Amino acid sequence: MNCLLIEETELDRATMRVRLDGRRRRHADEILKVRAGDSLRVGLVGGQLGRGEILTLDREVLELAIDLEAEPPAKLPLHVVLAMPRPPVFRRLVTTLASLGVESLLVAGTARTEKSFWQSRVLEQEAIHERMLLGLEQARDTVLPEFSTHRYFESLVDEVLAPRIEGRRAIVAHPAASEPCPHALGEPVTLFIGPEGGFVDFEMERLKQIGFESVSLGPRILRVEPVIPLLVGRLFG
Amino acid sequence: MNCLLIEETELDRATMRVRLDGRRRRHADEILKVRAGDSLRVGLVGGQLGRGEILTLDREVLELAIDLEAEPPAKLPLHVVLAMPRPPVFRRLVTTLASLGVESLLVAGTARTEKSFWQSRVLEQEAIHERMLLGLEQARDTVLPEFSTHRYFESLVDEVLAPRIEGRRAIVAHPAASEPCPHALGEPVTLFIGPEGGFVDFEMERLKQIGFESVSLGPRILRVEPVIPLLVGRLFG
Repeated sequence: MNCLLIEETELDRATMRVRLDGRRRRHADEILKVRAGDSLRVGLVGGQLGRGEILTLDREVLELAIDLEAEPPAKLPLHVVLAMPRPPVFRRLVTTLASLGVESLLVAGTARTEKSFWQSRVLEQEAIHERMLLGLEQARDTVLPEFSTHRYFESLVDEVLAPRIEGRRAIVAHPAASEPCPHALGEPVTLFIGPEGGFVDFEMERLKQIGFESVSLGPRILRVEPVIPLLVGRLFG
Repeated sequence: MNCLLIEETELDRATMRVRLDGRRRRHADEILKVRAGDSLRVGLVGGQLGRGEILTLDREVLELAIDLEAEPPAKLPLHVVLAMPRPPVFRRLVTTLASLGVESLLVAGTARTEKSFWQSRVLEQEAIHERMLLGLEQARDTVLPEFSTHRYFESLVDEVLAPRIEGRRAIVAHPAASEPCPHALGEPVTLFIGPEGGFVDFEMERLKQIGFESVSLGPRILRVEPVIPLLVGRLFG
């Protein structure tokens, strides 16, 4: 944790003080090993970054006096559309995507997405929120990416993606593509990451029809966990 | 597993047949769900890629007739020097690095590397070999990256890195760097990835003295697991 995040509802705006327990108290106590009088980097979820002076830290409570002063880092102009992967992989990816600074995450069903994945608890709103906060705390950001799930590929493509990719580069990584993935685009991007085993032909055709370019990442087949940061490193910065 | 890897010592060169049990038999049987008469992508560790025709697949053995015909994909001209991370992270990274196609992995001690990490079983030769094979099988490669450990930062820098980075770009990611990390270098690279918490000043100075450039990845602090593929996507392709 490189920044302790506080929800607006936890902060007393009159005194700019906050009292925390649970994970954040323990982290300050046991991992950061800070004490009363020390100060911590803090952020308000959806708001500014700043410092928190520790007023109390004992086995029950962490009390801070907050001073907010700086804007969070800019988001990448990137929408990620991710075919729902195995739940433990998804769980880690939500944190990684939040830390990388994506604007939005759309989770998609495809022909090769296992139906049972949709029952997983990792998709519950509270679980997503918690995993995103971990990524924001890692990266010193405060703004949660937008999040939505789209279980049916066809309505996702027709109703959501087709209007949403106007004015953006829309890219899908595909092993059979002939064009290598470009570097440093300097424009907003929508990136569709397919399922393990890849898209079926029909899906690839539909994505191309609405304006997705298919690009190659070379002869190696990579897992989704390294592919996402690899594409972020390639397309931005 | 996108390619089943066979060790030279397992292959009967006279008949080009191989009998396997354990993990690879189970994977063919239960995950790939192939049967006698089907064929699988195979590779010889350190050698060529090809196909294996299934002669027998039962609860004890997988017997294949092998036909080798293609060279494995080229490696990235990349040496990764990695400050030893927490063992579970290291374990996953070895597989990821092998799948990405790095030429070599040097594991380093630094001032902020916890001493206890060096006792971990994840550093045993057999464990490294096994985790690398998983990455090669994922990426359809056969060639193990070179691997070495260097517990003492100063001898690593003076005796190993100084001579080894001649004629290469040597890059270290550092939050305080003013230059952004370049794209698509098109030349061999040595990349040093620091520990959680970063290098101490003395270490950064020594790396610069022998020719490392420090580059920035922007205001976000990222974990080592996404940083490595992010840098691979940025520097190559």
